[in-house]
Amino acid sequence: MTDLLAKKRDGGALSTEEIDFMVQGYTRGEIPDYQMSAMCMAILLRGMDNRETLDMTMSMMHSGETLDLSPIRGIKADKHSTGGVGDKTSLILCPMVAAAGLKIAKMSGRGLGHTGGTIDKLESFPGFTTAISEESFFRSVNDIGIAIMGQTADLVPADKKIYALRDVTGTVPSIPLIVSSIMSKKLASGADVIVLDVKCGDGAFMKTEEQAETLARGLTRIGRLAGRKCAAVITDMDQPLGYAVGNAVEVKEAIAVLRGEEKGDLLELCLTLGACMMAEAGVVRSVEEARQELLRTVEDGSALGKLAAMVKAQGGDPAAIEDTDLLPQAAVTLEVPAEKRGWVRRIHAERVGLISMHLGGGRATKESAIDLSVGVVLRKKVGDSVEAGESLAVIHASCGEKAREAAQMLLGCYEFSDEPVARPKLIKQIVR
Amino acid sequence: MTDLLAKKRDGGALSTEEIDFMVQGYTRGEIPDYQMSAMCMAILLRGMDNRETLDMTMSMMHSGETLDLSPIRGIKADKHSTGGVGDKTSLILCPMVAAAGLKIAKMSGRGLGHTGGTIDKLESFPGFTTAISEESFFRSVNDIGIAIMGQTADLVPADKKIYALRDVTGTVPSIPLIVSSIMSKKLASGADVIVLDVKCGDGAFMKTEEQAETLARGLTRIGRLAGRKCAAVITDMDQPLGYAVGNAVEVKEAIAVLRGEEKGDLLELCLTLGACMMAEAGVVRSVEEARQELLRTVEDGSALGKLAAMVKAQGGDPAAIEDTDLLPQAAVTLEVPAEKRGWVRRIHAERVGLISMHLGGGRATKESAIDLSVGVVLRKKVGDSVEAGESLAVIHASCGEKAREAAQMLLGCYEFSDEPVARPKLIKQIVR
Repeated sequence: MTDLLAKKRDGGALSTEEIDFMVQGYTRGEIPDYQMSAMCMAILLRGMDNRETLDMTMSMMHSGETLDLSPIRGIKADKHSTGGVGDKTSLILCPMVAAAGLKIAKMSGRGLGHTGGTIDKLESFPGFTTAISEESFFRSVNDIGIAIMGQTADLVPADKKIYALRDVTGTVPSIPLIVSSIMSKKLASGADVIVLDVKCGDGAFMKTEEQAETLARGLTRIGRLAGRKCAAVITDMDQPLGYAVGNAVEVKEAIAVLRGEEKGDLLELCLTLGACMMAEAGVVRSVEEARQELLRTVEDGSALGKLAAMVKAQGGDPAAIEDTDLLPQAAVTLEVPAEKRGWVRRIHAERVGLISMHLGGGRATKESAIDLSVGVVLRKKVGDSVEAGESLAVIHASCGEKAREAAQMLLGCYEFSDEPVARPKLIKQIVR
Repeated sequence: MTDLLAKKRDGGALSTEEIDFMVQGYTRGEIPDYQMSAMCMAILLRGMDNRETLDMTMSMMHSGETLDLSPIRGIKADKHSTGGVGDKTSLILCPMVAAAGLKIAKMSGRGLGHTGGTIDKLESFPGFTTAISEESFFRSVNDIGIAIMGQTADLVPADKKIYALRDVTGTVPSIPLIVSSIMSKKLASGADVIVLDVKCGDGAFMKTEEQAETLARGLTRIGRLAGRKCAAVITDMDQPLGYAVGNAVEVKEAIAVLRGEEKGDLLELCLTLGACMMAEAGVVRSVEEARQELLRTVEDGSALGKLAAMVKAQGGDPAAIEDTDLLPQAAVTLEVPAEKRGWVRRIHAERVGLISMHLGGGRATKESAIDLSVGVVLRKKVGDSVEAGESLAVIHASCGEKAREAAQMLLGCYEFSDEPVARPKLIKQIVR
């Protein structure tokens, strides 16, 4: 390992065997933390070429179990988001794509920090569980086209260990290390088609479009080199995605989109991600044809039907889809009136996420329990005009005190302009 | 510490307080190895400016005890070598300089690996010890001008810990880390004047003169910024220094130089290092004057007298200086005849050092016992002409088998040319 450290330190490329020795040795505890952390810093500062990044990804992927999706008939599609505030995309996209004929066999995680996890959100349906066996997971996907399973403990143990070390050694922001972390898990999850939603802006890890593009190209390149169909969409995270930030409130918004009641940026993003999936899968002649087909799944109710079928198959009560009042309801709701008139210039996404966490909707540690009913529902987004006293957002809280604290914090998230402000473009770039 | 890692990773300069937090925290065990190793890699690849290197040096120096040499009257001088093969310079230089009036209060270490330590060499004098109290150390220096004490355990504990970590994480070759490691110990040892012998070439850590000059300038700059008088001499280590490599055999060679019997490069190096010391100390009008004065200490026997006085004061038998047969003698000596005629083009210094170690003259681990009597005495150096069958060197060994193995290894250290070869210059540059 000392030789490998010297090689990378001096700008050399590690061989396939060397990378595998390092990844497996570290995962098994034979290489100490202090050598791996020095290596992560050397990789961050010296880089890794495509071959090394692919080797690192494949070695990490094989550090534990991988999911064999061959019992599922048809083309298996998966989506990954680099994480944002109010990101309920999977709840809309997956039923749409399943209704359009692709198979969604999704492994998903719980949220940590202010970014909620898809599993947490889905648990808003009373009785819903993702702790299902591989057998019933496969059966559901074959029968109804869609199922979501919690990430098993043995998937990519190398990533768990390396990520925990990077987190405390200043070595998170390295493109090859981020790519190998994300793609090792996506590849281990077995899908044929992988679409990546790479967020950029204030509320995302990649602050600029340039950084996001570099990451997007890295991710799709490694996916393709590993033999999968891959595309990425770079999307704005300078303000929260859609209007709701929380768990049950996000599910309600997703249902509204699937019902065709909400037709904004969020629907547009789901159409774009879904169209990329279908185009990569080769089941349509063009991206435009895919968009039309996906839009039809909303208009004819088939996408909403897929969500209901999945909720039912995994033990949840689908009645909550028809009557969203059956989803967890917060004890208190509080409107947050604007202090003066103007145009919304900015909404600090990360801070809105932290409010949801403060209300009890996010996890501070892996063991924290979360309150599914709380959150924030924005009424105004960037570009909207606001009158003094008009409501900016509704706080959903467990008590009046928490609600008032959150309302105060929310005012600090908004910035206003005296001049009209252009609405930002949500979809910045498609990388295929 | 994570913030500090991010700062250095991104090329920033750490503040005085941040460096102290890091050095003291790591020494006390509050900062884990995996963070410090990532920091060492970041420092290696991003560098440290002069202020940071000085802060690092001073913080390391203050991580443990420092030696207060104020009970000693006069100007205290010290010398450090970056380590080479056959380096018996201290044994010659220190008595010369003491005879010329500077005070030598030297802390010295034992050897590890193929590089012998001055203390090991001096223990060739039966009864000699460096385990003396500070009180008798000071008394000796005041009385006779020279004493050598073993390094106490509490001197710069930060360096022991950081160096051990660097050794296994590929982070040794960083100029700011090397400078802070060397200078923290030199500064803690308390001398007013510090002269550094920076080796370069095959047998040294710095392989090129350029690297050696960078290190030499870094060392003298930090020494001066810390308020000491400092100079460095860059010397060739492409072949062993002088002729003897071992312990007692090196002491014999040192005595021969002090007797005026050997007048080659080795004497020249000692005159140069000593003249730098005296010029920095300000006790002479010119380097040339210092050289003449030092040469006089050899010619009039006063330097040899200082060595005898020191050996006697520290419990050794000075009779061995008059009769070197009283020094440890190897059981077997074996001449190594050349296989063909030619001119010596190269002698691999490091390999000669490894032969001495193989014979039992060096330590593989800190706990190893060493055989003071064994070693190699070269008869031919680079530029010398050799006839087939003429002896290249004498092996001093504990048995015939070891001697024959060493002789075989020694033949592999020599390279010959059919054309005459110029003698390399030992002293490459003086950095003041």
